[in-house]
Amino acid sequence: MTDSITPLDDIAFSFQDRLAQVLAEGRQRSRGGSPQYGQLWESLTRMATGGKLIRPRLLMDAHRSLGGGDQAAAVDAACAMQLLHIALVIHDDVIDNDTVRRGEANISGEFASDAMRRSAGRREAQAWGNATALLGGDLMLTLAHSLLARLDVDDAKRRAILDIFDDTVFQSAAGEHSDVWLSLHLEEARSQEVLEMAGQKTAVYSFQAPLLIAAVLAGANTALAEELAAIAVQIGVVYQLRDDVLGLFGDEQVTGKSNFSDLREGKETLLIAFARSDPSWADVQHLFGDRMLSTADGHRLRKVVEESGALVFVESIISERCEGLYRFIRESTLPPALRHQLIELTSECNRRTA
Amino acid sequence: MTDSITPLDDIAFSFQDRLAQVLAEGRQRSRGGSPQYGQLWESLTRMATGGKLIRPRLLMDAHRSLGGGDQAAAVDAACAMQLLHIALVIHDDVIDNDTVRRGEANISGEFASDAMRRSAGRREAQAWGNATALLGGDLMLTLAHSLLARLDVDDAKRRAILDIFDDTVFQSAAGEHSDVWLSLHLEEARSQEVLEMAGQKTAVYSFQAPLLIAAVLAGANTALAEELAAIAVQIGVVYQLRDDVLGLFGDEQVTGKSNFSDLREGKETLLIAFARSDPSWADVQHLFGDRMLSTADGHRLRKVVEESGALVFVESIISERCEGLYRFIRESTLPPALRHQLIELTSECNRRTA
Repeated sequence: MTDSITPLDDIAFSFQDRLAQVLAEGRQRSRGGSPQYGQLWESLTRMATGGKLIRPRLLMDAHRSLGGGDQAAAVDAACAMQLLHIALVIHDDVIDNDTVRRGEANISGEFASDAMRRSAGRREAQAWGNATALLGGDLMLTLAHSLLARLDVDDAKRRAILDIFDDTVFQSAAGEHSDVWLSLHLEEARSQEVLEMAGQKTAVYSFQAPLLIAAVLAGANTALAEELAAIAVQIGVVYQLRDDVLGLFGDEQVTGKSNFSDLREGKETLLIAFARSDPSWADVQHLFGDRMLSTADGHRLRKVVEESGALVFVESIISERCEGLYRFIRESTLPPALRHQLIELTSECNRRTA
Repeated sequence: MTDSITPLDDIAFSFQDRLAQVLAEGRQRSRGGSPQYGQLWESLTRMATGGKLIRPRLLMDAHRSLGGGDQAAAVDAACAMQLLHIALVIHDDVIDNDTVRRGEANISGEFASDAMRRSAGRREAQAWGNATALLGGDLMLTLAHSLLARLDVDDAKRRAILDIFDDTVFQSAAGEHSDVWLSLHLEEARSQEVLEMAGQKTAVYSFQAPLLIAAVLAGANTALAEELAAIAVQIGVVYQLRDDVLGLFGDEQVTGKSNFSDLREGKETLLIAFARSDPSWADVQHLFGDRMLSTADGHRLRKVVEESGALVFVESIISERCEGLYRFIRESTLPPALRHQLIELTSECNRRTA
C-alpha cells in the first residue's frame, strides 16, 4: 500500500505546484483503470488548476500577513480550499443540470458530448455526463479532506482546522439546499432569507474558511479570528449581490452565461425580492422560473426588474455594505498588510465583471 | 468554534451508540437552519442506523479476532465504514435515478413526494429530491472522513488508515464509473471487465477496507494484511454474483425491487455476458436496456437468459468460488476465530436472499 498523497517536503513549493502534484498523483493512479476514468482525472485537473484561485490565494496571503511561518501547512490547506471549491462547483452544476460553465463545456457537458459522438442517445449521454460529474465532485471532496487530515501541524491545530472545514461543508450544503428549495417557490422568500442563503452557500467556504484556517495556522488569537469571521461574511454578501447583478445585467461575453439563465431557473435574489413588491411584477410573474423563457420575454421580465428600481436599490446596498466594510476593516485590530488585502478583496468583489 | 464531533471517551460505547451520537450531533446542528435541512438529517440518520450493518460489524469482529485492543478507534473506524457505505448508496441512487430502495422511498423519493404534495410540478420535485440526495451523500462522505481524520491513534497508523480509506473512495468511484459506462453499451463488455468492475464498485469498500483497517488498528503484519485483501476481493465477487442472480431471479417481496429493473437499466452482469453468446439472444437483444420494458417482454428476456444456461453457469461459478475461498481461508495464517468469521461471511454472501 503506497501513500495516497506524497507528503510535502519542499517548503518552497507554491500552492500551484502542490495542486498540480496532488492532481498528477490522481491521474497517475487512474492509469490502471478505464480510459474514461483517466479522462475524468484530466478534466478535474484542468478545472482545479484553472480560474482565479481566489480562495487558496486568500489563505496564503492572510497566513503570511498574520505572521504565520508554517508555509508547507499553509500550502496544503490552500490546496484543500481550492479542491473543496471545485467539488462544490461541480455538484452545483449537477444540481442545476448545467452543461456549460464560464462559456465552456463542464464535466457533464464534455462527457455527454463524447458519448453522443459515439452514438449514445441524448438521454443516456446526459445521465452519463451527470454521473461522471457527481463522481468527480466526490473525488475532489475526498482529496480536500485527505490533505487536511494529513496536515503536519500539532494535534490541537489540526483538529481546529478539521472543525472549520467540516463546519464549512455543513454550511455550504445547507446554503445550496436552501437555494434549491427557494427556487421551487413553494413559499415566499424573504430578503433576509435570500441573503442568509447566499452567505451560507458561498461566503462561508470562499472567504470565512480560508481566513479562519490561516488564522489557526498562524496562531492568531480568538478576538482576531472573530473579526476575520465577521469580515468574511460581509465580503461574501458583497460578492453574492454582485453575482446576482451580473447574472441579470452583466456582459454575457465576459460572464460566459446567458443573462436569462437565472430568470429561467427562478433564482431568488435580492433583485427579485425587491421587484416582487412592484405592481408591474404581477404581469410578468408567470415568466419567472419558466425553463422555456423566450428571449423577448426575458427582456420584458428584466425590464420590469430594472424599472421597479431593484437594480438601483441593490447597487446602493452594495455601496453601503462596501463602505461599512472598509470602515470596519480600517478600525479592526488586524495587521496593516492584511487590512490592505481585505480592502482590496472587497473592492475586487464589488468591481468584478465576471 | 465548538468541536464538530465530540471525541469518544467511553470505550464501552458500541459502534451503534457512537453512530447514533455523531448523527444526533448533525441533527442538532441542523436545527438552526431550514426545516428541510433538518428533515434531510433525519432521513440520513434513519438510513445510516438501519440495515444489516455488515461493514462496521466486519471491522469490529476482525479487530477483536486479530487481538486488537483499541476499541475506541475501532468503533470510530467502523462508523466511518457505515457512513461511507451510506454515501455511496445515496449517490448510486442519484446516478441510477432511483427513488426506491429495498421497497421504501429513498431520499430522492421522499423529498420529491413531499414537494409534490405541496403542489410542486413533477419535474421540479424530482430535481429537488435528487439535489437533496446528492447533498446528503456529500454530508455522509464528509462525516466519514471527519471520524478517520480525528482517530486517536499514533501518526503512522492514522496515515495508513487514511491511505486505505482514500484508496477505497478512489476505487469505488472508478467501479461506479465503469458500471455506468458499461450500461451505455457503446462497446462490448467482456466477462472479466464486468467482474472487475463489480469488485471495484462493491468489494473494495464493503470487505477490503473494513478488514485492512482492522488489521492496521490491531497491528497485524503485512503478510496477514495481504491475505485479508485477497480474501476480501474473493468474497466481494461472491457477493456481487449473488446480487446479480437475485436481481433477476430473486423473490421480489424479499429483495424489495423488481426482477426487471436490472434488465431495464441494461446492467452488464456475468449472467448477461454468458447469455449473449447464445443464438437466442439475438431475438431479445433489443429489449435489453429498454427503460419501458413491459412485464411480458421482461419475462421473455429473462427466459432467454435462463435457458441459455447462464443461471446454471453463474451458480456453478459461485459454488466454485466459495469452495476455493473456504480452502484458502482454512489454509491461511489468520487466527482461528477470524477464519471462522470469514467462512461464515462468505456463506452468508452466498446464501442471502436480499
